[in-house]
Amino acid sequence: MAREVKLQNPHLERLETDHLYHLGLSTKDDLEGRFSDVRFVCVGGTAQRMKAFAEYLKTLLEVDDELVDLTKDGHRYSMFKVGPILSINHGIGGPSFSILLHEMFKLLKYAKCKDVIMIRIGTSGGVGVPGGTVVVSTGAVNDLLKETHQFHVLGEVVNRPSTLDEALANDITTSGSQAFPDTVIVNGKTMCATDFYEAQGRLDGAFCSYDEAKKIEFLSKLQRLGVRNIEMEASLFAAMCAQANIRAAIVCVTLLNRLDSDQMIEDKEVLHEWTNRPQRVVGAYLVKMLRGG
Amino acid sequence: MAREVKLQNPHLERLETDHLYHLGLSTKDDLEGRFSDVRFVCVGGTAQRMKAFAEYLKTLLEVDDELVDLTKDGHRYSMFKVGPILSINHGIGGPSFSILLHEMFKLLKYAKCKDVIMIRIGTSGGVGVPGGTVVVSTGAVNDLLKETHQFHVLGEVVNRPSTLDEALANDITTSGSQAFPDTVIVNGKTMCATDFYEAQGRLDGAFCSYDEAKKIEFLSKLQRLGVRNIEMEASLFAAMCAQANIRAAIVCVTLLNRLDSDQMIEDKEVLHEWTNRPQRVVGAYLVKMLRGG
Repeated sequence: MAREVKLQNPHLERLETDHLYHLGLSTKDDLEGRFSDVRFVCVGGTAQRMKAFAEYLKTLLEVDDELVDLTKDGHRYSMFKVGPILSINHGIGGPSFSILLHEMFKLLKYAKCKDVIMIRIGTSGGVGVPGGTVVVSTGAVNDLLKETHQFHVLGEVVNRPSTLDEALANDITTSGSQAFPDTVIVNGKTMCATDFYEAQGRLDGAFCSYDEAKKIEFLSKLQRLGVRNIEMEASLFAAMCAQANIRAAIVCVTLLNRLDSDQMIEDKEVLHEWTNRPQRVVGAYLVKMLRGG
Repeated sequence: MAREVKLQNPHLERLETDHLYHLGLSTKDDLEGRFSDVRFVCVGGTAQRMKAFAEYLKTLLEVDDELVDLTKDGHRYSMFKVGPILSINHGIGGPSFSILLHEMFKLLKYAKCKDVIMIRIGTSGGVGVPGGTVVVSTGAVNDLLKETHQFHVLGEVVNRPSTLDEALANDITTSGSQAFPDTVIVNGKTMCATDFYEAQGRLDGAFCSYDEAKKIEFLSKLQRLGVRNIEMEASLFAAMCAQANIRAAIVCVTLLNRLDSDQMIEDKEVLHEWTNRPQRVVGAYLVKMLRGG
């Protein structure tokens, strides 16, 4: 049976028009006509990367769609459509991403999309793995080391489980490893931090109240919990997709091993090649799913 | 005595080069030569708005600087310089903004800037005030209704006070009211939410577990605490600037009164004119400070 997006809000039925304000779209824009074929939604931090990913998919899938920023009117996110795939940026961090997800879930529901899979591609700091490693997440841990994401609802803390679809993670790892045998692809948990510096134990922020020994103690604790990398969106993304009944995966490359350093000091060319790895791994999975090869 | 940016991190002295990764700048880029004259840093959500603000300042202050995106190489933020003013976007939410602030504080310190004032301009939802009202914040409340911002440091919660400079707020309100007597400008507290929907009590997100009565109860509670508007960055910005010894202000226009509705349904032209009000109010303050008139 087809899997549907589960909105949990009885108030939406009473809205004559729903303005997806930050996407610059509304229910008056023939969402079903324009988006009902969508099966994959790929998300990542920057607009530039998600446009490049859409261009890569066009070549890979031999699709001729002209790339138009479909959410330009909202001035917040940039969204492109390549066949049944949307590629859109979410900015940095949970709050920015949560707006996109609320409005994307509504868009997918209004467009009557079925069996949708969402995949985040991004960059991260490695925990005990070298720079250039692609980590496909098997679960998300927040930066208080719980496997939940902390939402605030009407002034109260609400923790929701940040589980990911392990079968999907395995499928992506398998097809990626087949297509790119020279790229190291591992499965592991991902820690989601609310900031880039103190929450991740970096020593190079504007403020730092701990020493190197405490930093290493923290990262070693993460390692023992099965965490392989750190970024800033995993627990929010996992928890919201789980709640909406959408299968979700996170594929991030590590730009350094945080046990060795805090700053990303590799050559621009090396960082650029590493940054493209999640695109390539996810591209291989999408080709397999859409063209069976 | 001149007021200096206070970094609190002994590790920075040991760095040979500090890469301000997300700004695409480093200590090798002659930060002092390029930025030592900076006295005001204006920040806001979108790149588009902050470029428009820089263009407006050029006209207002009769400065001929060519607008170049100085942080283009970082692919995350867009920064423009107009005389002694920087105009840069921070994305949506605390995590995105915190990266910018860590790296901006270091930039200002390395450039030996003194007496710097930071001003956020933005949009917000009103609490008991009509759309189009400009709120100059006298303090920030987080979405658990505390006057702190919750940071996570090495897996532990650390609450830091989110106080703002009330004298600065009053100066901005006064010069804005003189320059634009027809614009309603009020002082009041601002609530900072970690999300646009559930944390703000909206009824139109993908998920909503409460009813209209609970929403109004929550907003009325905010009103009794002196909160006049809700956005997504205030407590983070206030707390980080206070910690760095930087005077900070927040000037946001309300796009609706949340006691009446959740969706921003005014005409595009009306919303556009309202959105420009913080730029105009802050512009009037900057003109007064820089040209005494």
